[in-house]
Amino acid sequence: MSHKPLIAIDAMGGDEGVSVMIAGAALARHRHDKFRFLLVGDQEKIEAALCDHPNLRDASEILHTSEIVSGDDKPSQALRKSRGSSMGLAIDAVKRGQASAAVSAGNTGALMAMSKLALRTMPGIDRPALAALLPTLIDSDVVMLDLGANTECDARNLTQFAIMGAAYSKIIYGFNEPRVKLLNIGTEDQKGTGTLRDASDLLRSSTGLPMDFQGFIEADKINRGECDVVVCDGFSGNIALKAIEGSARFVTDLLKRSFTSSLRSKFGFLISRPATELLRHHLDPNNHNGAVFLGLNGVVVKSHGSANEKGVANAVEVAARLVEKDIIGRISSSIDHINAENVNKESDGK
Amino acid sequence: MSHKPLIAIDAMGGDEGVSVMIAGAALARHRHDKFRFLLVGDQEKIEAALCDHPNLRDASEILHTSEIVSGDDKPSQALRKSRGSSMGLAIDAVKRGQASAAVSAGNTGALMAMSKLALRTMPGIDRPALAALLPTLIDSDVVMLDLGANTECDARNLTQFAIMGAAYSKIIYGFNEPRVKLLNIGTEDQKGTGTLRDASDLLRSSTGLPMDFQGFIEADKINRGECDVVVCDGFSGNIALKAIEGSARFVTDLLKRSFTSSLRSKFGFLISRPATELLRHHLDPNNHNGAVFLGLNGVVVKSHGSANEKGVANAVEVAARLVEKDIIGRISSSIDHINAENVNKESDGK
Repeated sequence: MSHKPLIAIDAMGGDEGVSVMIAGAALARHRHDKFRFLLVGDQEKIEAALCDHPNLRDASEILHTSEIVSGDDKPSQALRKSRGSSMGLAIDAVKRGQASAAVSAGNTGALMAMSKLALRTMPGIDRPALAALLPTLIDSDVVMLDLGANTECDARNLTQFAIMGAAYSKIIYGFNEPRVKLLNIGTEDQKGTGTLRDASDLLRSSTGLPMDFQGFIEADKINRGECDVVVCDGFSGNIALKAIEGSARFVTDLLKRSFTSSLRSKFGFLISRPATELLRHHLDPNNHNGAVFLGLNGVVVKSHGSANEKGVANAVEVAARLVEKDIIGRISSSIDHINAENVNKESDGK
Repeated sequence: MSHKPLIAIDAMGGDEGVSVMIAGAALARHRHDKFRFLLVGDQEKIEAALCDHPNLRDASEILHTSEIVSGDDKPSQALRKSRGSSMGLAIDAVKRGQASAAVSAGNTGALMAMSKLALRTMPGIDRPALAALLPTLIDSDVVMLDLGANTECDARNLTQFAIMGAAYSKIIYGFNEPRVKLLNIGTEDQKGTGTLRDASDLLRSSTGLPMDFQGFIEADKINRGECDVVVCDGFSGNIALKAIEGSARFVTDLLKRSFTSSLRSKFGFLISRPATELLRHHLDPNNHNGAVFLGLNGVVVKSHGSANEKGVANAVEVAARLVEKDIIGRISSSIDHINAENVNKESDGK
């Protein structure tokens, strides 16, 4: 892998459009001299945005297209126009080896569908998964996956998600044996669905995987910092993620309402502003930006649709990091390991 | 139904023990002259607790037992000692018609298992569900069910939960046509599992039910006040509920940490205390206490294990209200209606 990661940026995705994507790439470039970029989208708009960022212009090529995937496009519609859109061309650059990774803030379903079609699932992985970082009470974020790519999953899928999540956590935080748990409605062995119990048995009986599998976790503990990777099917994961986001917004909305309820509390709020800024910083999704599609033959990072330039820069850094630290190779070696182990078990059983 | 509801109280359940259960019952009695109580548990302890509440003593009988269901008992263990325990005897009083409803703050799994065994599922309902009230941005709470009684559910179960949830919402808030939604990972028709799509079709095609069915809701909208009843299977519901609780605690923990991070913010916090008290009041689970097992031949209310006397009083009031407003009759008439409609549809189809 080159020591100069070249990141393909879908410059047209996201609620904020070209200017934020370009500003974010420029910020990442500012932090990392060696980054190179392929900026995909409307050439005129990209060049206009680059006027403010000569530093980025010197490190970038532009790939023009006027076609874009809209936020409302269903995955099937998006697939039909995949070839020519900024999202499709960014992914295609990864497929052709021109770019090492793609970053898009566009429509998640379309990005997933296009990435799967173009890059294909990596050997040994049955299904790719969408993983994100969530804030916790401790210094490191928790990796959670799958967050919606697979509505229904079997035990083998969940085991593979555990392997992919552990590799992600290792790369981001350097944990040699990330603490991995399965999301369930109780922590006792007999709780939940048969699929979850089977996945737990599979992970418990696999030795030598680069993770510390610790059984089940309930949804109220996800943010406590008690584990590094939370594994779930895409339905439960999406429910949990959105419930967490919605509840955090609910509490901060109530807080705002409380603080503006009287002159006295408005005054108190002003005085304690640094404290509430600290809270805002900790909860700001831009500090945890960069959902990743794991299990594909290539690195694709989804930046949050409403991310600001700091958020986009974080997503770019996550993409570069995954390439440099060889996420695909790491996942591959764990999969080979668990498959070899299962073959040995089967032959022992004969 | 008698105009003097007699509530059986499992005086031994809950983290705080007899004193809180008795104080809570006393508070409910203080608010409602007509309430009568059957206090089930250790006679000596109950009598000691009643010394502070002569008002409650005059309205109560005591049913002595020294046996209790512990928080650690699995439902199967609890069932074995169901007959003699304070929880079991409270439910049994409902079964025999001695009490109109039972309230317990004990082990939820055990309470569900015992209630199901003793009271049986009501005619036309395949499975009972656990429903709770969650705070929202508007004045009324949202009813959510099932929260864990049924790990896996089919479309018919979900339809019945919708009927039961709507009846509950109607009784608590007087809404003639509560807005009902199904919890899903997207709001478009094709989203989620086949079970959810089937349930949506069933509810959409049923006319004359006392509810306004509005399709799907995502988990980040549960607390927004956009609907009155959220329907889900017990696995998703438990995940969503706990994710909401955990996230709210996470944010308030961060807030506490922020407010104690400097002298200045501590001072600001003191000044804005009335505001944070308002927040605390809104989020206080004691103000939303009273999870209900719906679909049984009797009313059983689960008070939160850590509820204070106000929380217990709320649970008692919920129980009395469900009895007075005839929750079972209401559910029954909706079930008859939907069954009759389906019979008509079938004969039309011939």
